[in-house]
Amino acid sequence: MGKRGLLFVISGPSGAGKGTTREALMRGDPGLAFCVSVTTRRPRAGEIPGVNYTFVDVADFRKSEAQGEFLESAQVYGNLYGTPRAPVEHLMESGQDVLLEKDVQGALAIQRRMPHAILVFIAPPSVDELKARILKRGTESAEDLECRLDCALREMDETRHFDYVVVNYDIDRSTQVLEAIVIAERHRVRHSNPAQECLEGKSGHDALPAS
Amino acid sequence: MGKRGLLFVISGPSGAGKGTTREALMRGDPGLAFCVSVTTRRPRAGEIPGVNYTFVDVADFRKSEAQGEFLESAQVYGNLYGTPRAPVEHLMESGQDVLLEKDVQGALAIQRRMPHAILVFIAPPSVDELKARILKRGTESAEDLECRLDCALREMDETRHFDYVVVNYDIDRSTQVLEAIVIAERHRVRHSNPAQECLEGKSGHDALPAS
Repeated sequence: MGKRGLLFVISGPSGAGKGTTREALMRGDPGLAFCVSVTTRRPRAGEIPGVNYTFVDVADFRKSEAQGEFLESAQVYGNLYGTPRAPVEHLMESGQDVLLEKDVQGALAIQRRMPHAILVFIAPPSVDELKARILKRGTESAEDLECRLDCALREMDETRHFDYVVVNYDIDRSTQVLEAIVIAERHRVRHSNPAQECLEGKSGHDALPAS
Repeated sequence: MGKRGLLFVISGPSGAGKGTTREALMRGDPGLAFCVSVTTRRPRAGEIPGVNYTFVDVADFRKSEAQGEFLESAQVYGNLYGTPRAPVEHLMESGQDVLLEKDVQGALAIQRRMPHAILVFIAPPSVDELKARILKRGTESAEDLECRLDCALREMDETRHFDYVVVNYDIDRSTQVLEAIVIAERHRVRHSNPAQECLEGKSGHDALPAS
């Protein structure tokens, strides 16, 4: 068949809940392969290397970067983040739909490289709620917190470049919406056209978009 | 708020199952108002005036047409079909999402008039299956049947103008996909941007896209 997989990118400001909704989405087994990003920042409490991020030191990161191993890389809040190119491309080429979780800057960089990527922005219900969530996490210094809040407000303005915005009132609801977006996108004509395949005699369950 | 409702158009060749999937979608109460089309064709067994179609005679149809009461109108298999303009526009202006069920020609005419309409093509799993379904319905003469099959094949080629294609293997699955498309589209940035509303102080549940 050679049908290429789709690329979904979940993004949003720090504290909007993109990590939690992404994890809840994956638990529902939506048929997505999650590709872990690489970072030089230290693991937060509860974060598992290889599950949340691949944690590396700056030297290793710079080496990978120099070898062109990243689809995109960027500095965010003083730490380096990168998306490994090889696993994403191999999975998509084999027809597997892929999921990335990126900060807003990283999501937009991926969109520039891969214009068919589907960008979902997870937004906080309000600025006050965002502040409360970042405070509650308690992993940031006061300076970092101020910086993250400022940045979050600027990032909210980038939503116009995204395909979808999901306001994260509660996790169950946001997860349902994410699932719906994945199913809907698998039936979008711009990605595939099963009716054409049916006409061309490739009908039957092979031509069925997974849902 | 003045937020305009979305317009969904379910279409597809005769016998693909657009009527059945549309009815199943509505039973799930997806928050859509279904606007009934007007036709000069005779009701099929089981069709209810005002529920499936508004059935009128040719003189009344032509009168409405002359008065500009239709969003689009067309002749299909020798019968006239039209979409009443007023209810669709009033509902959308009041923020209500609207659903239409149209033949392929009608769906494309609506897209030309309302480029933001979301067009969903319900496709049969295969040409043989389409033939079997039209035969099973048994409401068509042999001549009509031949004509509908020919036309269906040509219509399958129009899917490139649609936003989504759903291959109708079974009704439950197709209905789930339709529901997902409705939820996803309510979160598309091109239709609305709740993150912007949040920034502008319109945050809270008023800014929440219905899902």
